Amino acid sequence: MTDPVPVLFSYYRSTAAYRVRIALNLKGVNYTIAPVNLLTGEHREAAFRELNPQGLVPIYRDGDLTLSQSMAIMEYIDEAFPDGLALLPQGVPERARVRAFCNVIAVDTHPLNNLRVLKYLEGELGIASGARMTWYRHWMAEGLAACEAMLHKAGPGAFCFGDVPSLADICLAGHMFNAERFDCPLGKFPRVVARHEVAMAHPAFQKAHPLRQPDCPG
Amino acid sequence: MTDPVPVLFSYYRSTAAYRVRIALNLKGVNYTIAPVNLLTGEHREAAFRELNPQGLVPIYRDGDLTLSQSMAIMEYIDEAFPDGLALLPQGVPERARVRAFCNVIAVDTHPLNNLRVLKYLEGELGIASGARMTWYRHWMAEGLAACEAMLHKAGPGAFCFGDVPSLADICLAGHMFNAERFDCPLGKFPRVVARHEVAMAHPAFQKAHPLRQPDCPG
Repeated sequence: MTDPVPVLFSYYRSTAAYRVRIALNLKGVNYTIAPVNLLTGEHREAAFRELNPQGLVPIYRDGDLTLSQSMAIMEYIDEAFPDGLALLPQGVPERARVRAFCNVIAVDTHPLNNLRVLKYLEGELGIASGARMTWYRHWMAEGLAACEAMLHKAGPGAFCFGDVPSLADICLAGHMFNAERFDCPLGKFPRVVARHEVAMAHPAFQKAHPLRQPDCPG
Repeated sequence: MTDPVPVLFSYYRSTAAYRVRIALNLKGVNYTIAPVNLLTGEHREAAFRELNPQGLVPIYRDGDLTLSQSMAIMEYIDEAFPDGLALLPQGVPERARVRAFCNVIAVDTHPLNNLRVLKYLEGELGIASGARMTWYRHWMAEGLAACEAMLHKAGPGAFCFGDVPSLADICLAGHMFNAERFDCPLGKFPRVVARHEVAMAHPAFQKAHPLRQPDCPG
């Protein structure tokens, strides 16, 4: 049985799933959402492990193709649907700058602060809630400072890199949702805040927002 | 003053720098290495912060272009030097599978185990050496299990994805160097071990090996 349109296995508050939702919306790809409840552990059940042995969301399924890893999925979407908005600039050095910005968030920050790591800090290492929040905000601040410096170099433009949204704005959206959720101080990062505000006025970003997902509790 | 050939700011034992060295060797790009000593803190000094506000290696500099983030640098090298070996397959789904494999390592594993994080665990959280090693091996085992499952799906081929090396083999090389350095058990990952052995017989991988770098202590 083939899905009539691509399916995104998603959890409303997963940063990585949020990214892919925005990318699909920006590209104008029609898709459905299959919610995976991380709180009740659906991602660790056999049915989901069949899709992704890692037990992580998001998973993107289109016919026989099943893809994991949000950054790889977004590059796939950009290459598989070349019509519509390009999620990366055309110039080779410009593409590298956008990818580097993304990886400050997706590589250097997010993996340190996701649920499985915070659980390990609590369960295996006995780190108390206060110290876990300090950990969280420490890596956020490191990442945000690097983003701010990179946006300074990038120069003017409504979005992170120029006048159209890119993978950079997508990664920043999830990052900022987390920063706001966990009260991370943002005063030192005016460019980050300004670019994020512009992105969040875009319908593709709004529709993908965690609090507007079908599996978001009422 | 422009560098006559691209310069890689590298530390011999940095996994991320190791990746880029392999990529440059595979593409046949002529480059020089500028060592940055992470043990003496050269990466935190003003001169290096000027190049990379994040204070992380590697940095790739070619004329006016200065790039950070190993994955972004390697995609850049692949796009900027289209002649020679392609570091990603041609097919769009195949490219996505290679990138997803890379990100199991580069996103989900490596950032949790790098020097700055181990230092935070020790200094800020007071985690003893034994528990830090358990942490290290825990994330390594999670990553290696996912890699093994992905290689199982990828099917036969001397390298990770087919009969030529790709970004997947590059990321695996750094991963395995760390796994061996920290005595991570490898018995459950026969495909990972076999693919890695093939890669390490390739001159581009050998030349890039941490123990063959100019800044490796004698």
